[in-house]
Formats: sequence, structure tokens, C-alpha cells
Amino acid sequence: MFLGGKRANELNKPVILDAVAAGATKYRTNEANKLLNEVNFSVIKGNVSEIKALFAGESSTRGVDASEEIDENNIDELVFFVKNSAKKINSIILVTGKIDILSDGNKTYIVKNGVDEMAAITGSGCMLSAFLSAFVAVENSLESVLAAVCTMGLAGEKALETMIKNNAGNSSYRNYLIDEVYKMTKYALDKGAKYELK
Amino acid sequence: MFLGGKRANELNKPVILDAVAAGATKYRTNEANKLLNEVNFSVIKGNVSEIKALFAGESSTRGVDASEEIDENNIDELVFFVKNSAKKINSIILVTGKIDILSDGNKTYIVKNGVDEMAAITGSGCMLSAFLSAFVAVENSLESVLAAVCTMGLAGEKALETMIKNNAGNSSYRNYLIDEVYKMTKYALDKGAKYELK
Amino acid sequence: MFLGGKRANELNKPVILDAVAAGATKYRTNEANKLLNEVNFSVIKGNVSEIKALFAGESSTRGVDASEEIDENNIDELVFFVKNSAKKINSIILVTGKIDILSDGNKTYIVKNGVDEMAAITGSGCMLSAFLSAFVAVENSLESVLAAVCTMGLAGEKALETMIKNNAGNSSYRNYLIDEVYKMTKYALDKGAKYELK
Repeated sequence: MFLGGKRANELNKPVILDAVAAGATKYRTNEANKLLNEVNFSVIKGNVSEIKALFAGESSTRGVDASEEIDENNIDELVFFVKNSAKKINSIILVTGKIDILSDGNKTYIVKNGVDEMAAITGSGCMLSAFLSAFVAVENSLESVLAAVCTMGLAGEKALETMIKNNAGNSSYRNYLIDEVYKMTKYALDKGAKYELK
Repeated sequence: MFLGGKRANELNKPVILDAVAAGATKYRTNEANKLLNEVNFSVIKGNVSEIKALFAGESSTRGVDASEEIDENNIDELVFFVKNSAKKINSIILVTGKIDILSDGNKTYIVKNGVDEMAAITGSGCMLSAFLSAFVAVENSLESVLAAVCTMGLAGEKALETMIKNNAGNSSYRNYLIDEVYKMTKYALDKGAKYELK
Repeated sequence: MFLGGKRANELNKPVILDAVAAGATKYRTNEANKLLNEVNFSVIKGNVSEIKALFAGESSTRGVDASEEIDENNIDELVFFVKNSAKKINSIILVTGKIDILSDGNKTYIVKNGVDEMAAITGSGCMLSAFLSAFVAVENSLESVLAAVCTMGLAGEKALETMIKNNAGNSSYRNYLIDEVYKMTKYALDKGAKYELK
């Protein structure tokens, strides 16, 4: 991991950190922190508690609500925290949740695509990481991350429509989700993306 | 396996044995017997031949038909065998097949939910084992095992209806089966469970 | 692999080589060639470039077009190449592509079943290899390989119809493909197989 990350840095290839379970176990928090010290990441992705475990030891983030979910009540506080953390580490940070927040330290977007059903299957977070890699490989920018996040969430919304129409469940939902990614078009993304510049 | 089972016993956590391929290879029969000697199982699950391989060396079971399938002809004999075996080992024994038999040595139920299609995919037996674990973790009782067996079989029946309606095959069936588990409600289970106290 | 192949030869069991990535890496080309030297294969399967990597070092094949796809323009040249290679190695060779070519060195068939969608999922090539094994285990003949290839391609065609009807995508397509294999009948195969003796 360390060797791969450093070599990718040398070759100017974007590297993405999916900080899975940072904060949940000491080992994972430590490894993630070591990676952050030794590798330059283009994008650092996690849910609220994962990202807080990595960046909220800083004084500027003490005010961040302990809640693990992003909603209308804590969104402004979290946007401030994510933006500052991104500026400090000089990477894009993506916090996923009911509302997603992404920032490169200068600009910050929030995304409202996606449905709860995506949490009823395994792998939707990993799919998004794969997406990020594909999008950032083409264009290493905040807008590229924004497009990946909107695409995934929009696919989740469309898949839910099919699930409801077919009176299906979570196993079929997983197929429908991949189907919708497969069928996604620029037109559908433009029409369905729900994001705001903060 | 041995360490895990013993530790779970110490902590009063229910342990389930899925006696896969006991009787089919010497190694597996021996390992299953060693586990039965060293660990107290809440539930021991297997098909007719697996359970017979573990318990039919006993004199009381000599009369048990050599047939591997449970049907109306051998059901009474098998009920007697399962009940006696459960009493002897002081665990719940669950024998799966066209008709399922489950007994804690005092009470014995038979279950007639389920369809042949469930044998056309891999994993439906493992799903039931996972189910048993979930149900028995909540309530360690014969009725809890009964509910798990009925839920699985009923999901299989409903999934078959969808497969036929959609003119689908076994791969879609596997998804429909998980879908039906996901959608199962107390009401549907009460209405669709087909069991008898023997 | 070597031991297994030789033992199967001793027992007169058919052995199939799926020459995945021969030609793509030195290691795989060498291993495939070693296997061809030490084991007698009933069927050797690959796409155009894989089969060419193994057999086109021979003088008789210099004229073979460098194109990796089989189409109406290079089909006659490729048929000639496959037939000659099969004769030389005394095995059935199956070249897969938009058009499939199979020959035992005497007779050569081309098959036009199948759709592009099969390349949009992982595993369809492996499914065909599993099919070949099943078919050749029953009857070790060129016609048996022909039936396997037509069955797989025809299942792919039917699965595409379902995908389009349901406005689905590649993940559902993978399920539909397995469904169609499951539902395939002798009658449907006779009616839908598209092959020619060359």
C-alpha cells in the first residue's frame, strides 16, 4: 500500500484513500494516519465518523457535532470542518452520508442524490470508490469527484424506482443499481444531479 | 472451531452445527463427532443422511429407513429418530428436506414450506444456517428454530411465484429468494407458515 | 495442472485448455505451450490472439490477418488456420469471437450465435469453458463442442431480449444469461442454433 501509493505519486497518478473503519479500530486509524503522512492523496473518502477520526483532533473542529449523520442541522458546521480539513491536507475530502460533502479547501459542494436503500446492500460504498478512481483518472478535479458522487446517487434513486415497480427486494436492488450505472447517460446525469455550491 | 465453540459455551452464546457432508467423508464425520463431544450445540442441522451419520449408529435408530429423502412413508419413523436423538444429545436437531423435522427431544415439529427450486441454486442451505443463527441469537428455543425454517421455506415459495411470473431461471431465483427474505413480514409469516406439532 | 492433466490422460478423461491471456504475457504463453507439450487436450479454446500466440509461429499461418476479431473478411483465412492447427496438434480447437470457429482438423464449423452484450459482463467466457467440460464429458466430439458453443450464444441472445424488454443493464443481464442456460431445451437449441459446416 505504502509502496504503491508513493510510486503512484512519483508517476503523478491520482491516489484515493477510502478510510474504511478509521476511528473504529486503533489499527485502522493508525494505518490511515500513516498513509496520510507518507502518500499524497487526490481524494480522501469516508463517512462522518471516519473523516472526523482522521481530522477532528485539530482544534478548529472541536465544535463539530458528535452526530454521525449529516442533516440540515449540522450541515453548515460539517461543511466548515470539511473545507478546513481539505485546505490543511491539500487534498479533496469527500464525506458520504444522506447528504454528501466534498471540498478541495477552496470550493465546497453538497450533494443530495442517493436513497437509504443503498445502505441495504453490501458494496455500494466500494462501488463509489471504484467510480471515484475511474472519474479522477480522467480528470483530477473537484468537479470530477462531484460527477462521480452524483452518478452513484442518481443510479441509486433510479434503481429504487425499479425495485418498487417490480415489488422486489435488496438482492434485486443490487442488480438494478449496477444496471443504472451501466445505463447512465450524460443527459440523465445533467437532469438528475442534485448539488449545490456552498 | 473448537476454541470458538467452547468460548461461546462459556459465555452462554448459542452455537449451531451445520453438519455439511457428515457421512460423505470420514474426515467430516469424525470432525463433526469431535465437535459434538467437545461443544454444546443449541441446534444441530443437517439433511437425513448427515444426521443419520451422526446419530444412527445408536441401537434405537436401526429401524430408520435408508432412504435419504423425507416423505409421507418414512416421516413417522424419522420423527421418532430425530426426537430420540435430540433427547440423547440434549440439543435441538433440525433435519432438512422436502419436509423438515425439528425436535428438542420433548416437542417435535414438521414443516412443509419450501419448494424444489431452492435446491437449484447454491447457498440456500447456508442461508438457512445464517437465519438460524440470527433467530436463535434473539431467542434460543425450538419455536425460534421453527420460525427460521418456515421463513426460509415461505420465501422460497414466494420467490418461485415471481420466477414463474417473469419466466426467469435459477439465477434470478436466487435474487428473488433474498428479496423475499428482505420483504418478509410477521403477517406474511403467520399466514404462510405450514407446520404441525407431532 | 500438469499432474492433473496427465492423470486425466491416463484415465481417458477429456481435458480442456482455456488459453486465457496466452500471448498477453510471456509467462502465460510459456505455461500454455508447456501444457500443450505434456498433456493431450480434447479441446483448446481461446480468442483469435490467444490461439495465434500458440499456433501461428508455424509457417502455414503467416498469412493470417493480424486483426484480433473474426469477421467476414478474414473468416476464410482463419478457418484455414484453425483447421491446420487442429490437424497438427490432433485436438479440437475452438476460436471464440463475434463468429466462432471450431475444427478437429477434418471438419470445421463456424457459429454465429451470441451478442456483444456477453462481453459486458465478466465470466461469460468461463461459463462457456464450464459448458465445454460438461458437454465433452458426455460425448467427446466436435459436434459436442458445437452444441456447447451454440447453447451459450443462444442463451446470450435470449438474455438480451429480456434485458431490452425490462430496460435493464449488464448486472441483470448476467442473471438472465444464467436463467436462459437453465431454461434451454433441445427444441429451443435446434431452432436457434446458427452454424455452418465450412
